[in-house]
Amino acid sequence: MIRLLVTGGTFDKEYDEIGGTLFFKDTHVEEMLRLGRSRLDVAVETVMLIDSLQMTAADRARVAERCRECAETQIVVTHGTDTMVETAAALAAGVPGKTIVLTGAMVPYAFGSSDGLFNLGSALSFAQTLPPGVYIAMNGRHFAWDRVRKNKEAGIFEEI
Amino acid sequence: MIRLLVTGGTFDKEYDEIGGTLFFKDTHVEEMLRLGRSRLDVAVETVMLIDSLQMTAADRARVAERCRECAETQIVVTHGTDTMVETAAALAAGVPGKTIVLTGAMVPYAFGSSDGLFNLGSALSFAQTLPPGVYIAMNGRHFAWDRVRKNKEAGIFEEI
Amino acid sequence: MIRLLVTGGTFDKEYDEIGGTLFFKDTHVEEMLRLGRSRLDVAVETVMLIDSLQMTAADRARVAERCRECAETQIVVTHGTDTMVETAAALAAGVPGKTIVLTGAMVPYAFGSSDGLFNLGSALSFAQTLPPGVYIAMNGRHFAWDRVRKNKEAGIFEEI
Amino acid sequence: MIRLLVTGGTFDKEYDEIGGTLFFKDTHVEEMLRLGRSRLDVAVETVMLIDSLQMTAADRARVAERCRECAETQIVVTHGTDTMVETAAALAAGVPGKTIVLTGAMVPYAFGSSDGLFNLGSALSFAQTLPPGVYIAMNGRHFAWDRVRKNKEAGIFEEI
Repeated sequence: MIRLLVTGGTFDKEYDEIGGTLFFKDTHVEEMLRLGRSRLDVAVETVMLIDSLQMTAADRARVAERCRECAETQIVVTHGTDTMVETAAALAAGVPGKTIVLTGAMVPYAFGSSDGLFNLGSALSFAQTLPPGVYIAMNGRHFAWDRVRKNKEAGIFEEI
Repeated sequence: MIRLLVTGGTFDKEYDEIGGTLFFKDTHVEEMLRLGRSRLDVAVETVMLIDSLQMTAADRARVAERCRECAETQIVVTHGTDTMVETAAALAAGVPGKTIVLTGAMVPYAFGSSDGLFNLGSALSFAQTLPPGVYIAMNGRHFAWDRVRKNKEAGIFEEI
Repeated sequence: MIRLLVTGGTFDKEYDEIGGTLFFKDTHVEEMLRLGRSRLDVAVETVMLIDSLQMTAADRARVAERCRECAETQIVVTHGTDTMVETAAALAAGVPGKTIVLTGAMVPYAFGSSDGLFNLGSALSFAQTLPPGVYIAMNGRHFAWDRVRKNKEAGIFEEI
Repeated sequence: MIRLLVTGGTFDKEYDEIGGTLFFKDTHVEEMLRLGRSRLDVAVETVMLIDSLQMTAADRARVAERCRECAETQIVVTHGTDTMVETAAALAAGVPGKTIVLTGAMVPYAFGSSDGLFNLGSALSFAQTLPPGVYIAMNGRHFAWDRVRKNKEAGIFEEI
């Protein structure tokens, strides 16, 4: 079984047609798993639904705690891309012996042209096959938590 | 680098609005890689664009030949689901020493509710991490070529 | 109030992912009205769900009967494009004194690139503003029932 | 021929995946006309691409001027919903003898669940059939410019 921890990020943002702004309502992960005809045994848990620029050290500690406490050793964390690397470092420091894969999206899943479904398929696959450790799965690739940065100008993740 | 061999299947079918039927025009794989913001080095090659029920032994030999001849050792093959298992067996017999992952879709990518993008993300990730061998990546899972069947009633792949 | 009679056609076709064919399940008209944020008072009634090539004289008589019997004088009929002109003629002969607008789609609404939502918005608007008579609303235009043909090669409706 | 004046609004907003914000790039109207298989003779002209909350009296005068100057007597104006009624009043005061229909969208066309295509089909149809005057076409309905308000809480237009 795979544990999927939802933390928010662009992945799950929606358009508020009354206010004309982006906001969080619910995670789209279960709908995405249905669309992907997933037959994996995935336990989806919404830990928080926030923009990753607002994520605090306490928030990261809470994600790490959920990673430690859950029975599963294969974990996917959906996360905003802006501070995904910081959270990956916190999880590497705080959660030994599990395969943790963070992923997200550059465009909200609810909008037409999102990379979210591609990334979710990718992250779930890496979580099943990579050895214990903390990774980021974006752009079809996987990166060890301490070998990656987000290139904010290009909107991609790259090896360092 | 990853070699991606296109053979057709539901994945790439389109709706012909003049005739009201489904047909093949071009592969959507490159568009899907752009949508997924893929930064993988993928060489896309259309070997054929056919319904997998029409795939002959000669067609399978041609796919196997392309797998053997290409320089890459990580290969993804997009394929119709109906005879994906037969082609997997042919590749297992004919292509030693490479990681080959077959994938497809239950619904054409061009239609709204396709599993194609999820499966493509999944297959590319398995191709990067699984040891040499022939696999099918569908429903978020990976199956060894000789341990899988398509359950045609349920429209899913399952272990045997 | 507007009466909306559903008869099927490409408009409402869906993809059967088990059989790989196109079929009818339910009409999408109510979902489309929600998507269009319609605040019109529309009574949706599914008269039949068939391919218009299979529509018989008895089927056309039934549609005409529903047009006559309903209280509304503004009626939209969703219909396959192949025999839309024949049904329009049957309605012109059998339903006096009402504004009846037939519309359809070249691509199923359930697929990404459908003209259905555009045509539905158009047909509902023509039904509110055209004088009594029978019309076809396709390609953004409206045609009197006896001044139109489907150009099957180009997939468009044109004046005769 | 119909003149279609683009002014921006939610209709044409896009998601900037680098900044995570909404912005204007180009109008989607031509793509929408293609999707709707429109065979209308429509002259599309981008007058401005702005949020309607930022529209000034000078901007409105410019739209009115373009309405007066163009040869066409049937005009559709795409516009943000927040100040659509103000612009309608300015056009009613400044452009005699033409049928002008303002429309917009509650959700950007580029996002999946937009009412834009429905509204565009509706507005173009009303422009062909309503007598000279200035109207708003939203929610499947048409309103005379001085008989309508936007209900900002419900996100709909209603008669006054």
